[in-house]
Amino acid sequence: MIGTGHGPGGPLSALGLGELRERHSAKWREYPPEVLPMWVAEMDTPLAEPIAAALREAVARGDTGYAVACGLPEAFAAFAARRFGWHTDPAAIRLVPDVMAGIIEVLHLVTAPGDRVVVNTPAYPPYFYWLPRIGREVVQSPLALGPDGYRLDLAALERDFAAGAAAFLLCNPHNPTGLVLTEEELRAVAALASRYGVRVVSDEIHAPLVYAGARHVPFPSLDDPAAARSVALVSASKAWNLAGLKAALAVPGPEARRDLAAIAAEVSESSGMFGVLASEAAFTAGEPWLDALMAGLNANRALLGDLLAERLPGVGYQPPQATYLAWLDLRALGLGDDPAEWFLRRGSVALYSGLKFGAPGRGFARFNFATPPDLLTDAIARMASSLDGRARTPRPTALDAL
Amino acid sequence: MIGTGHGPGGPLSALGLGELRERHSAKWREYPPEVLPMWVAEMDTPLAEPIAAALREAVARGDTGYAVACGLPEAFAAFAARRFGWHTDPAAIRLVPDVMAGIIEVLHLVTAPGDRVVVNTPAYPPYFYWLPRIGREVVQSPLALGPDGYRLDLAALERDFAAGAAAFLLCNPHNPTGLVLTEEELRAVAALASRYGVRVVSDEIHAPLVYAGARHVPFPSLDDPAAARSVALVSASKAWNLAGLKAALAVPGPEARRDLAAIAAEVSESSGMFGVLASEAAFTAGEPWLDALMAGLNANRALLGDLLAERLPGVGYQPPQATYLAWLDLRALGLGDDPAEWFLRRGSVALYSGLKFGAPGRGFARFNFATPPDLLTDAIARMASSLDGRARTPRPTALDAL
Repeated sequence: MIGTGHGPGGPLSALGLGELRERHSAKWREYPPEVLPMWVAEMDTPLAEPIAAALREAVARGDTGYAVACGLPEAFAAFAARRFGWHTDPAAIRLVPDVMAGIIEVLHLVTAPGDRVVVNTPAYPPYFYWLPRIGREVVQSPLALGPDGYRLDLAALERDFAAGAAAFLLCNPHNPTGLVLTEEELRAVAALASRYGVRVVSDEIHAPLVYAGARHVPFPSLDDPAAARSVALVSASKAWNLAGLKAALAVPGPEARRDLAAIAAEVSESSGMFGVLASEAAFTAGEPWLDALMAGLNANRALLGDLLAERLPGVGYQPPQATYLAWLDLRALGLGDDPAEWFLRRGSVALYSGLKFGAPGRGFARFNFATPPDLLTDAIARMASSLDGRARTPRPTALDAL
Repeated sequence: MIGTGHGPGGPLSALGLGELRERHSAKWREYPPEVLPMWVAEMDTPLAEPIAAALREAVARGDTGYAVACGLPEAFAAFAARRFGWHTDPAAIRLVPDVMAGIIEVLHLVTAPGDRVVVNTPAYPPYFYWLPRIGREVVQSPLALGPDGYRLDLAALERDFAAGAAAFLLCNPHNPTGLVLTEEELRAVAALASRYGVRVVSDEIHAPLVYAGARHVPFPSLDDPAAARSVALVSASKAWNLAGLKAALAVPGPEARRDLAAIAAEVSESSGMFGVLASEAAFTAGEPWLDALMAGLNANRALLGDLLAERLPGVGYQPPQATYLAWLDLRALGLGDDPAEWFLRRGSVALYSGLKFGAPGRGFARFNFATPPDLLTDAIARMASSLDGRARTPRPTALDAL
């Protein structure tokens, strides 16, 4: 059943390479066709059927005018109550074009030009472009990397808050490390934010993508003054692969409602109408598909570990607690600061260069495993082959026959 | 043939009120259902079939990832060559989320914070929000209103350039007046811009919507130094009703290519994937639909004049040379500065308040006539009735039975 994602292998086994290469999005168009694209955070899945149905109906209606939020805030609030136990008032939620745009809107409202905004690094690359665009200074506060993977470094965070920060741009679940902060850690963040008068803006775009063993706690849901003054940015775009349709939501804590009310109508109207409709369908009727997706991602998360252990044992890989992103420590391979460049040129695999994620990204790269298992397997095989000198130019693979 | 717009009445006669009320976009959701919405620039048409087909295919592919420009620059360049005789290099064209966002990107690159940017008023309301957002000052340079309608006031423009302007945000064809500047007028603008060192950013979103008797001349196509340094913002969004899908293009004159090359990838990636695909279909295969649309709009343009002459003879109306927007002079009705408020409360018709278009908008309102002729007729009937005291509350109309 191509297109439904309801085959026995789930959404991640529904499409073949030939179908994926017909896509027009960044993942499949940025590099030439001999390159296997494992970089940008798009998924190689068909649309969940409720989303596809909503979009087909919108096309039939010609419903392509300016976006309004419609039932999206209510749909998200109901999803958040079911999934996270978070009870939030849809009347206070505001539509924004995407999570990044929403972050910028909120920072525009709750900070001033010249203010310092703390981010945990490695960090989502567009932060480094958009924050300076509105005159905010990015303060890099590195996560701590230990033998068990990344942890929040509260001492570093306090140091950076104490040095004079207006806001903390929290990213939880964290991109690119897949770290999910515990409620205890989030409470500690809130306590620091209260102590130093720091506003918290919480990028929770990956919240629906948490694996068993971890739990997503929405920052504004905490019973804490700094949490009450925080704003979370959420979207269906990562979990249901809707980045190109342009819709996200700004969700305030109880004491941040007035701040969000100041978001101009001009901003919400810059969102995508199809993004609103698709996201509403996702939050309302997309959970069965999401559960099937998570089963497939969980299997890929383990497969990636097995493949790396077998073919690239020098690579550091801590299975993420959330997201379909693997933050690979490639420093032991001796490929220099930008191993992604090596694998692109020598292995015809596109990773996301760690250099774009801030100072701690040297020698690292981000690998997107939301792809069919055979493509995941081929990508690691290409990477491994590029290292043993057998593939200075791309070698023919079984993929070419698909 | 509902949905195709190829019935005998063309795209503007394809849909009934019941179908339109099922839409989720701003036009149909901002006001309660008893209000007839004639305000925001959406059209009450079905999608052109080539666009609908492209979108259906994208849904089937699950092609909802991050946007890239694909073949859109080439499609626009070919359209511009056929339609305007403008030969522009697609390699220099950049994708932006919408025309307003593109204007802001270009002003961000070619002007500095604190700079003054001249706009002809009345002006598209979002200019007054977004330009100050990036620290640019809006200088209102009114068009001249004479007995034959609006004209460009070159003396006023020179005065405002001479006072120290960094850029002129030209809007041609002009929203809301429908004025189309002649090549001679545009040459005079270019000469002034050269003399005073003013960069021209040209909002040409309505370029495909010019009626017989006028001709669109793309500003960057002029053989002039200021034109060579100008940038036009174009889109399929107005002519094919795609505002909610989020795609537009920045098209440089030959000497502005380097400026546009500085637009960050992060900006283009904020565009809508479906906007790209729909716009490419529009520019490539949407001209027959556009021609049918223009025939219908031309008929509505005349019908509106007849209805106003008959039912609201005090209203000043100059048929626009382009666009489906009528800029109504309602000052003689004695309804104060904001007649749109009267017609909304007393006539259950939503116009776009003239107050949002700058100082010359007092006593005016914008009326969108891209609607089925029966709805256009009903809107004018409601407005007329609201004035003769017979309709302090909405009266039942034939529309209620549709």
